[in-house]
Formats: sequence, structure tokens, C-alpha cells
Amino acid sequence: MVLIDGKKTSEILQSEIAEEVIKIKNNGGKIPHLAAVLVGHDGGSETYVAGKVKACERVGFKSTLIRYEDNVTEAELLNCVAQLNSDEDVDGFIVQLPLPNHISEYKVIESINPGKDVDGFHAVNVGRMVAGMPAFISATPFGIMELIKRYKIETSGKNCVVIGRSNIVGRPMSILLSQKGVDCTVTLCHSRTKNLKAICAQADIIVAGLGIAEFLRGDMVKDGAVVIDVGITRVKSDKTKSGWKLIGDVKFDEVAPKCSFITPVPGGVGPMTIASLLYNTLLSSKKEIYK
Amino acid sequence: MVLIDGKKTSEILQSEIAEEVIKIKNNGGKIPHLAAVLVGHDGGSETYVAGKVKACERVGFKSTLIRYEDNVTEAELLNCVAQLNSDEDVDGFIVQLPLPNHISEYKVIESINPGKDVDGFHAVNVGRMVAGMPAFISATPFGIMELIKRYKIETSGKNCVVIGRSNIVGRPMSILLSQKGVDCTVTLCHSRTKNLKAICAQADIIVAGLGIAEFLRGDMVKDGAVVIDVGITRVKSDKTKSGWKLIGDVKFDEVAPKCSFITPVPGGVGPMTIASLLYNTLLSSKKEIYK
Repeated sequence: MVLIDGKKTSEILQSEIAEEVIKIKNNGGKIPHLAAVLVGHDGGSETYVAGKVKACERVGFKSTLIRYEDNVTEAELLNCVAQLNSDEDVDGFIVQLPLPNHISEYKVIESINPGKDVDGFHAVNVGRMVAGMPAFISATPFGIMELIKRYKIETSGKNCVVIGRSNIVGRPMSILLSQKGVDCTVTLCHSRTKNLKAICAQADIIVAGLGIAEFLRGDMVKDGAVVIDVGITRVKSDKTKSGWKLIGDVKFDEVAPKCSFITPVPGGVGPMTIASLLYNTLLSSKKEIYK
Repeated sequence: MVLIDGKKTSEILQSEIAEEVIKIKNNGGKIPHLAAVLVGHDGGSETYVAGKVKACERVGFKSTLIRYEDNVTEAELLNCVAQLNSDEDVDGFIVQLPLPNHISEYKVIESINPGKDVDGFHAVNVGRMVAGMPAFISATPFGIMELIKRYKIETSGKNCVVIGRSNIVGRPMSILLSQKGVDCTVTLCHSRTKNLKAICAQADIIVAGLGIAEFLRGDMVKDGAVVIDVGITRVKSDKTKSGWKLIGDVKFDEVAPKCSFITPVPGGVGPMTIASLLYNTLLSSKKEIYK
């Protein structure tokens, strides 16, 4: 059983990006520039955005953080997006979600120039991904595909079961894994699926992204399966300093012994997302997706 | 076994549209207006576009046909699209594919205002469909979903196998059938799929859109299955006046006796596409997708 090390893989990807930034600097090129828009003071959002800014510094990107209070109007936020769209120095930007209830997230995301939408949430990027055209792929699916590639996991003709049909995990994973060149036969399962246990037990590859802690049990997985765990649930623990621990959608101790490859939680898919965002920003600054 | 009558269902949908146009006229509203751009003299394209113009007349829409010779430049065509985008009288328009090799189809389609893209090919409409947001759904998938709805075919929790991952049939069908409210468990199969026969034999619903004549045989289908045949292959025949006949991806005589529902070829999915295009144009004129 190979434990897929997302933390290490993310560090490798980030150091590759950092090396490329050094080359760009040495050639007098433009330093990639990521901007982040943060609304309000949600603890999780603060942490995520701080991590993104820090990661930019680490790889040598320029970063800008724009903050608004919770009471910012939708019009003000749309105006901010318009300014970032037209700011030629900004290669990519994100608007950290969730937004306050009085603002339409979908409207804000659709107002982003798809060519700067390094989160890959804009309909144009989703539509291009579906068509197999160059697109910014969102962080979690991008990170998973990168792990599969770097661990040389065979995908062609493999039966793959994706559990959960969310717009940010299950749905894009089902699309990417069944694309030409990846070539899995993908079954997308969800809350209305019958006989999920039997369906999972036939799978060569399982992507668990339904958001239910320790849902995937040992008897749902066949010997030699590849298991990708995208769940993160925070539970109380008396064994950690913080009093909390993170657990995934996979009952690791039961499932891991049967697997050929498995991602742990934490330290699997999670750490890849930040590297994915940086990579998209680099692609954007090199005009590799939108010419 | 119920034979799904696409011709009749298309006529019903078109007469519903025609009734709505009469109401719009009586209320002094704006008559829906569909424009079609045809490049060159390809026989198939000529026939399709003529059929679309005729259908517009039948339901009381205004229609405009814009023709170019094969040697039209990409710039000229993009300029035509820009004019149609800004023409307030035009509710929706299509650029008939295929285009000559010197013109990028993708570039032309991406230049269409998504709010007038009644073919549903623009990345924004595909991306919105994926996200479950209001979108123009392209004609074939829309037509199939309409047949499933009007024949009250149960979908929730059903195992569905889609054969073929094309951007215009298999891929969007896999997305639509697995969406919330439809709730099939969808397996998307393609040329690299192993054990396709066994996978199909477990399916409650099969959508065959791979483009190989009479591919789906009797022994690949379980009793009581629903079979949707999206294939059209033209073969020589000495039994028809024209010397040609159309056959689908399903070996009808073997498969039909086992089915609860099946679409014939011709007369199944095919006739629905024109009604779908008209319906999208009506939606556009009512600003029901893009406000």
C-alpha cells in the first residue's frame, strides 16, 4: 500500500513554481501576481486567504489582499472585480467564498474575467473543461489529477466511482477522470444512488467527496483499489493539542490495508489545493490558457 | 413495450410553442426571432437550416437566414456574429456547423453572446448546465430529457449507462441525467471502457450515442430497460424510394422486445432537436435564462 503524500507533492509542485519564477525574474519577465478579495472576518476564510498570500511570497509571486467589511454592497464588490479585471498587472484573482447572504456569489463569480479566474469557478472555465479545451481547473480537482499523475496511477479503462456530485469536487472529478487521455469509466454516485456498496466494491478507483465522516468502510472496497479521500470533517479529540482533529470520508484503518494507493486526511488532497491555485496563476501570467 | 414517438412529441411541443406565440401576438409582445448563419453549400447543412427556417414559420417566429460563401474569412464571420449579438430584434441565433477548415469553430462559438446562444454550445451555457444554473441546453440532450419527462420515465436512483462521451450527446447527457431532481446514477462509457456488455446489462436506462450502427445488441440489455438511441447512420437500402435508410446505434429488432421504453430511428430523438431549438428561442425572447 502506497500512502499518497499530498504535503510533499504540494511542496515539490511549489518548488517547481518557485524555480520558474526565478527564471522569469532572471529573464526580466513579469512576476506573476495573484490578488485575493476577502469579505468580512470569517475565521476559516481569514485562514485560507492568509495561507494563499503566504504561499505567494514563498514562490516569489506578487500578491495583493483586498479587504471589505461584511456590509459591503454587491455593487461595490462588482466594482472591485471590474477593477481587477482591467488591472493589467493582476494575472489572476480570487474572491474568497462564502460571501454574505445579501451578495449573489454566482453573480460575482460570473463577473470575473474568465482569463483571470484562477479558482476555475466561472462558467466559461467549467464549460471549457467539459469540452476538453484549455481551462483553469479548480483547485481540488486539479490537485487530485496532479496526485494521480505524479504517482503514475493507471487510469485508462479503469472503473472509477465518484461519490458525491458537488460542483467543486464530485462533478468536475467525474468529468476529468472520463476525459480522453485519462479514460476511466466513471460512475457518479450520490444520495439517491441505490446499492452504493456493491457499486463501490467493483471500483478500481474511488473518489470519496460526499462530506460524511468515515463513510467509506472496508467492506465497500476491493483489494488493490485506489482511494482518494476528499472529505474533511473537524471532530473533537482529546489526543491533539488543539482539541480537534480532521477526519476524512474514508474509514482509514479499515480501508487502507486493502488499497494499492490511498490519500490520508490530513496530508492528502488538502495540501494540493494551494499549489493548484499558484499553478493556475503561473499559467495565467504565461497566457497559456487564454492567449 | 412503449415505442417513444419523437415525431409526435416534437409536434406537440411545437404546437405548444405556436400557441404561446399567438398569445404573445395578441398581447402586443415581441415575436421571437431566430437567425441562422449558413456558410457554404454542404448538402446536410442546407437541409438542416432550411428545416429550421421552415419550423420558425410554422410556429409563428420571425426568422432570418444569413448566407456566406465557403471563402468567407473568419474575421467576416466574427463580425457577423458581433452584429447579431448587438441586434436587439434577434433573440437567438445559430451558426450552422461544420465550418470550413480555415475558420475556428470554437472561436466563432465563443464569440456568440451566451444569452443568444440557443444552440447551447457556448462554454458559458455548458458551464451553467454543469452547475445546475439556468442555461440553454443543446438540442439533442434537451430533446432526450423532454422525451423522458413527457413519457414519465422514472429516473430517480436508476442505473443509467451513457455510451459515448461526445460533447454534443454523451457528455451532456451524463451530466443532465445525474443532476439533482433527475437523480440517475450515471456511468459514462466510451471506447476505452472494459466489460461494456456487463455494464450495459445492469442498466435501467441506456443512452446509446457512440455512432456505431446497431452496436447495442439484445444480449447487452436487461428486461424492462429504457433504451434511448441517439445514433444515425445512413446506409444503402433497396427497400426505400431514396435508396437509403437511417439506422441507429441499437439493433432494434433484438433490443426492442426486452424494453419498457425505446426510441426508434428514425422518428425518436431526431425530430425533437428542432423543437428544442425553437423552445430555447422562445425562452430567450422571454428572457427566462438570462434576465
